[in-house]
Amino acid sequence: METESNNSWARSERKMNIPPELLTFLREKNDFFIATHINPEGDALGSSLALSMALSTIGKNTLLFDQDGVPELYRFLPGQEKVMHTYADQQPSAFNLLLLDCNTPQRAGIEALDFRQSAVIDHHETESDFGDIRWIEPKAAATGLMIFYLIKELGVGITKEMAVNLYTAIAIDTGTFRFGNTTAEVLRVAAELADSGANPAFISGSLYETWSEARFHLLRMALQTLEIRDKVAFTFVNREMYKKTGTGPEDTENLSSFPRIMKDIRISVFFREIDDDYWKVSLRSKGDINVAVIASFFEGGGHKNAAGYYIKAPLDSAKQLLLTRLSELT
Amino acid sequence: METESNNSWARSERKMNIPPELLTFLREKNDFFIATHINPEGDALGSSLALSMALSTIGKNTLLFDQDGVPELYRFLPGQEKVMHTYADQQPSAFNLLLLDCNTPQRAGIEALDFRQSAVIDHHETESDFGDIRWIEPKAAATGLMIFYLIKELGVGITKEMAVNLYTAIAIDTGTFRFGNTTAEVLRVAAELADSGANPAFISGSLYETWSEARFHLLRMALQTLEIRDKVAFTFVNREMYKKTGTGPEDTENLSSFPRIMKDIRISVFFREIDDDYWKVSLRSKGDINVAVIASFFEGGGHKNAAGYYIKAPLDSAKQLLLTRLSELT
Repeated sequence: METESNNSWARSERKMNIPPELLTFLREKNDFFIATHINPEGDALGSSLALSMALSTIGKNTLLFDQDGVPELYRFLPGQEKVMHTYADQQPSAFNLLLLDCNTPQRAGIEALDFRQSAVIDHHETESDFGDIRWIEPKAAATGLMIFYLIKELGVGITKEMAVNLYTAIAIDTGTFRFGNTTAEVLRVAAELADSGANPAFISGSLYETWSEARFHLLRMALQTLEIRDKVAFTFVNREMYKKTGTGPEDTENLSSFPRIMKDIRISVFFREIDDDYWKVSLRSKGDINVAVIASFFEGGGHKNAAGYYIKAPLDSAKQLLLTRLSELT
Repeated sequence: METESNNSWARSERKMNIPPELLTFLREKNDFFIATHINPEGDALGSSLALSMALSTIGKNTLLFDQDGVPELYRFLPGQEKVMHTYADQQPSAFNLLLLDCNTPQRAGIEALDFRQSAVIDHHETESDFGDIRWIEPKAAATGLMIFYLIKELGVGITKEMAVNLYTAIAIDTGTFRFGNTTAEVLRVAAELADSGANPAFISGSLYETWSEARFHLLRMALQTLEIRDKVAFTFVNREMYKKTGTGPEDTENLSSFPRIMKDIRISVFFREIDDDYWKVSLRSKGDINVAVIASFFEGGGHKNAAGYYIKAPLDSAKQLLLTRLSELT
């Protein structure tokens, strides 16, 4: 059995082909500007923090940047205080860019900046050919999984702080091991991160049981807006609800997932009001329904079971447009 | 790293000391009556089903018994149709008893039966010294984990059907890897079960995403009743809500857990109306708050973080009584 276990582990390792030029880049350069996407979540932040720690271990100078800063929810991540949301005092042009968990500078809000060289590490389908070096693994459950292998390949031992960040990255992107991307490999890496000091219950508690009362009231209001049409569940949050509950856009995270618990729901669609008749739309699907295709029709993006886009339209028109597009695709 | 991985795996294996007399018992006897506790959940059922399959593989005759049968939720488990809830046609006295996931015949509703010999396999603290052979591992996250090691020790290969049952057993008792009992070992065993054919997303979907629309409406109504006093969240469901939504008492399962997602909530208390001023009370606490003690004061019972009792009182008095008792205890 130990032999079997070894074999499958070895198989897992071979799935990830780290480009040799990426390893050379990380070993030879000294100054890295690590950036990730706007509105960052656990995979973006956990991956960035763990890689920054590993690079520091081998004597590199790193800056961590996210335009939106670290949301309250992720303040438990070790090292999160180092993430900057401005680069006023820095000269990005003196740095090499490491773009994580996204693959265009626009997604990170850094399109106006110049860097020496750039490398992209992402598990999303690419939207452009940006990056001098590109490591894209659309089949990886999380960018955190890629960073796990990368850190090991760099010969750096996984510390407890790195493990907490990487476990969080993987936990968020697999719904704590509930989504379709949860493979034996994912569980095996999670086990190794637990061996390295990540505490699964602490991380899950931090992610799922730290809602404010105000946010809970926002959830209740959002659930009251439920409308089901053609096995698609629609819910929304508007700016008036923020006022009534004392919440903001950051409190809408995960609200899109709740209606999925219903057996007959194929897709859960969540609308977040940004401005008059202007909405951020989050799509969460089950099984084989590919919402990334739908999102891309509306010039958005994402994964098969979790995607999103922006739309300028009255709410009811936006719902109808989506249903029409869906009926054409399925 | 593979070496490290091996070492910790080997360490995990040594944690479980399967009594040699249990292995002899299973190898030498031929007829087994596998019983588990009333009101069975995933660990009770998954463990029983997997062990039955493994024993069949080595030529043994097994009967599967649960007094309450298999709840709707668990009808996706391979082999579940073999679980009997009566033994009218059978002669239990011709069988050897295997009592799983509980350790007294009362818990399984079989105290009136005689068996040839008996073995108990359980991860709960023992309540009695019942059993000719006893394998009790209070530190095991699930009985399913014990059965996993037992099947391997019997030299039986884990089939896909066994893997689905064992993965479900472990998933339920760890809250899909969110509770404090989620160790590296648990994740490693889950990985091996996924290798053997258990599909994590299918199992999680079957457990958590099969609500009826009516039940979802009941959840919305229950959440509207939220009242927070002294860091205790109170919600309730009354008979009028069942009528309005077309639901029943069985649709209240898990409703008690939702308010726990709030950071400042110590205990979530859920009242289910049974009759006029007569309520079933469910308590769910976080961390070190022992609600079993509170429940026992009201002549109920349960575990540290999940307990319950019945009370005959108007709702508001019932809430006040609980708060008073709580303030005396903490």
